[in-house]
Amino acid sequence: MNLPEMKWSKTEKEAARRAFERAYRKECGVITAKIREMIKTASEPEDLWWIHDVLTRERRQTDEKYDYRYSVLLFVFARLLHERWISEIDLQGLSDDKIEAIRYLQTGSTR
Amino acid sequence: MNLPEMKWSKTEKEAARRAFERAYRKECGVITAKIREMIKTASEPEDLWWIHDVLTRERRQTDEKYDYRYSVLLFVFARLLHERWISEIDLQGLSDDKIEAIRYLQTGSTR
Repeated sequence: MNLPEMKWSKTEKEAARRAFERAYRKECGVITAKIREMIKTASEPEDLWWIHDVLTRERRQTDEKYDYRYSVLLFVFARLLHERWISEIDLQGLSDDKIEAIRYLQTGSTR
Repeated sequence: MNLPEMKWSKTEKEAARRAFERAYRKECGVITAKIREMIKTASEPEDLWWIHDVLTRERRQTDEKYDYRYSVLLFVFARLLHERWISEIDLQGLSDDKIEAIRYLQTGSTR
């Protein structure tokens, strides 16, 4: 099975896009909540720049992680599943072999 | 009068440092309050990254502005006075010629 060459039907693409967007919004929501908490107690200039450092890191990490190219998307979903940003139910609409591949890849994902 | 070559006494250095730090904390406090307000209503990923963009810009601007080298410090104070991050009372402790120079430079400052 050559993952990067798997074909994606229109329905699968729609399902994939939905799951991807949902996870992205969820993770960004968690980051937003974290920043909201941090800024509440920020009193020194260093606290402010620390928040900026955290945001810079989170942005770089999410930009890297949320890579919507079909050639890597199964790996992306495996990671999102492993990190619990999606659950298997979010993947409904994908073919069985893709879901199998994601499950298989997930076991090798690291947070 | 050659501004970069003006001598700074120990007392003046202490007064300058106090005024500089006070202004820096004040400006960072205003930025913190702004970010705190922005994050309250942030709901979309774009809102979060917009806050990051704002923080990146503010950090670059404050890093540039708050340059504590004696060769440029009178220009820095002129700008801080013009932008109302300090008032003349904060400059007490500096020699009259320095305060005069700051007043003079202030008229040419742009926000």
